[in-house]
Amino acid sequence: MSGAPQPDLDLAAAVFEALARATRHGRGIVRDSYGAGEQAAHDILRTAASGVGLEIAVDAIGNLFMTLPGCDRSAPRIIMGSHLDSVPQGGNYDGAAGVVAGLSALSALRRAGVAPKCDLSVMGIRAEESAWFDVAYVGSAGALGLLDPACLSVPRSDNGQSLESTLAQRGFDPQPIRTRRRLMDPAGIRAYLELHIEQGPTLVARGLPAAVVSGIRGCKRFRNARCSGEYAHSGAVARAYRHDAVAATVALLHHMEAVWLEQEAAGADLVLTSGELYTDPALHGPSKIAGETRFVLDIRSLSDTTMEAVAAEARAAAARVGAAYRVRLELGTATDSPAAIMDERLRSALMRQLARPFEMASGAGHDAAVFAKVGVPSAMIFVRNENGSHNADEAMALEDFAVGTRALLGLLQEFPL
Amino acid sequence: MSGAPQPDLDLAAAVFEALARATRHGRGIVRDSYGAGEQAAHDILRTAASGVGLEIAVDAIGNLFMTLPGCDRSAPRIIMGSHLDSVPQGGNYDGAAGVVAGLSALSALRRAGVAPKCDLSVMGIRAEESAWFDVAYVGSAGALGLLDPACLSVPRSDNGQSLESTLAQRGFDPQPIRTRRRLMDPAGIRAYLELHIEQGPTLVARGLPAAVVSGIRGCKRFRNARCSGEYAHSGAVARAYRHDAVAATVALLHHMEAVWLEQEAAGADLVLTSGELYTDPALHGPSKIAGETRFVLDIRSLSDTTMEAVAAEARAAAARVGAAYRVRLELGTATDSPAAIMDERLRSALMRQLARPFEMASGAGHDAAVFAKVGVPSAMIFVRNENGSHNADEAMALEDFAVGTRALLGLLQEFPL
Repeated sequence: MSGAPQPDLDLAAAVFEALARATRHGRGIVRDSYGAGEQAAHDILRTAASGVGLEIAVDAIGNLFMTLPGCDRSAPRIIMGSHLDSVPQGGNYDGAAGVVAGLSALSALRRAGVAPKCDLSVMGIRAEESAWFDVAYVGSAGALGLLDPACLSVPRSDNGQSLESTLAQRGFDPQPIRTRRRLMDPAGIRAYLELHIEQGPTLVARGLPAAVVSGIRGCKRFRNARCSGEYAHSGAVARAYRHDAVAATVALLHHMEAVWLEQEAAGADLVLTSGELYTDPALHGPSKIAGETRFVLDIRSLSDTTMEAVAAEARAAAARVGAAYRVRLELGTATDSPAAIMDERLRSALMRQLARPFEMASGAGHDAAVFAKVGVPSAMIFVRNENGSHNADEAMALEDFAVGTRALLGLLQEFPL
Repeated sequence: MSGAPQPDLDLAAAVFEALARATRHGRGIVRDSYGAGEQAAHDILRTAASGVGLEIAVDAIGNLFMTLPGCDRSAPRIIMGSHLDSVPQGGNYDGAAGVVAGLSALSALRRAGVAPKCDLSVMGIRAEESAWFDVAYVGSAGALGLLDPACLSVPRSDNGQSLESTLAQRGFDPQPIRTRRRLMDPAGIRAYLELHIEQGPTLVARGLPAAVVSGIRGCKRFRNARCSGEYAHSGAVARAYRHDAVAATVALLHHMEAVWLEQEAAGADLVLTSGELYTDPALHGPSKIAGETRFVLDIRSLSDTTMEAVAAEARAAAARVGAAYRVRLELGTATDSPAAIMDERLRSALMRQLARPFEMASGAGHDAAVFAKVGVPSAMIFVRNENGSHNADEAMALEDFAVGTRALLGLLQEFPL
């Protein structure tokens, strides 16, 4: 391996530092989608890529492409990418790490004088975070013609300006989104590779620098579940006569935890969460039986079949528990985003690049899911990161980033697989 | 029974109607403690009692006594009573029914020319509801010297005026409360008898007009229980690494329901309620693991031993569940009001008065608990009531009231027991 090209870590460190300097506001990072913060990140990456000698292109909706040309420029290209926006008061690495990884890989190939067979592009993707426009994947889904045109009228959460007028103001063109016209042909993309920090604690807990992502969990979410019983005196009503909304909700959620344990024992990938649960502060009371709860039930899995089965069991359990507790227990409609399995061959190839191979699911969504959806073979590498993401305390060590980027670089050199 | 005195139901109906007319505001009844509504009720009862020919007296803190004099006026007297205040937007019967029952019983005895051995007094008790001054039993506990003088500075919930200045403004004397001086000697009270509407649905469900109360449940309440975990992404954190406050709270409350079922199976009297349970609306989210919950755990029983045991199990379970779910699960301190068992002989005597004898616990607190606390033999009759209490829809039928009052009247004629 001594002679093999190594990721350009000096460049990576300099770009991370420049990004932090330009987009830190108070403790956290602010790279607002299609705003000044995201644009600053695009400008920094573009400047760095020019220094490396890459070709620069920007598509109609602002995605940035930094390309090391291949011998056959008409051959399907390989895209390495991630997003350059952040949530408000986010961290420096969520998104940016994947773009910087691609850049430092291409810098290494360029310095080593490697002439790739096909174009190798790093894509700085716009507006992945839904924090600003309440729509995720604007850049990738927009470029692939998948975006619902209705999103153009969504106001930005901070200033109320619509996505359409924000795009126009930045000099971009809302027209392709309005007509669902794709800006790139999936057939022209040989692979999409995305490095991203892990947003959970698994790699920290396991003492591993990086992992291959098996897939991106889909999500079925009962956003507006509700239990309606009857308010009554907590001392004066015997168990048999209660319509206790809290007791019924507890029984349902406890049952769903048992379902989770069963699924886990059977080897299924699953996470179940109720992150919102509340009685009504205007009507509840310390000496009352609660007449109502509202709650969320969030079901995620790599398997759409598992999600379906668990959601069906939740509905059946809600009916059973509702009858047993003499309440109306309604889960309501579920929002639905299907799971995205990463490409089998790319995953195997990436696993071979890791000294301590480890594969794990991604619970959060990523642009890679969008590429996978249109049939582009896609793969992801997670890099160890402390303190979760979407906060100022994201902490990715450059050595761990190097491990992930080295795997990416190794994979590039293996093509054709 | 044909020749036995019968409760004066015409008087009762007239008084209930006058009370509703004078104190209805919108849909509900408002007899504010030491306010205009409560005073109106006292005035109506006092006028009706004068019509019957009873002696009238008012103690230093405003309790009203309407007395049929006994042959031996120095003998310990029998008090029939309840309160004449209501919660805001309450119903017409909670409290008042007990005072009207006493009055219609004494009217019957008077009309029948019965000369009782001892004084028989009806007591219209002040300020039983804690809705106005956040202190319950002001009238009964104040008269028995049990009230914490600190309550004098409690502001009324609607107008902010202290109990002390409210008392003074009505022409009453806060001095006995300030010095804990009792206004009546428990040794001078042979029995305290209270008729009250049932505040739960048991009698409606069982098709019974009235019941004898076995005791008034005590209450141990963890008012400020709290679970502290860690907020995190609902998709990205595996079960083993979660610090999920909702999951832990659900596990604890589910365990406590199992404890309740066990206690019930073992024949213990118990009700368990969590009427407030909520994640933090400022921090929770549909795709987050919840980092915190707040909740209430309300434990009630006729047995202080049962309450102690259940509270101890709740504390132990909180520690176990907290450790298992990697969260801090703290119940905090419990407020504590002991159970009050009604007098065995009076209960048996009342049971004999009922055609379909039935005994049940009172979950809510009543003035009878205060009399029992100072050693006065006390008993209660519950009358069937639809729709619970503390709301405009309380519904007690006069026939059911008659059954309860007849039992009271029968008991009076049985003395000495």
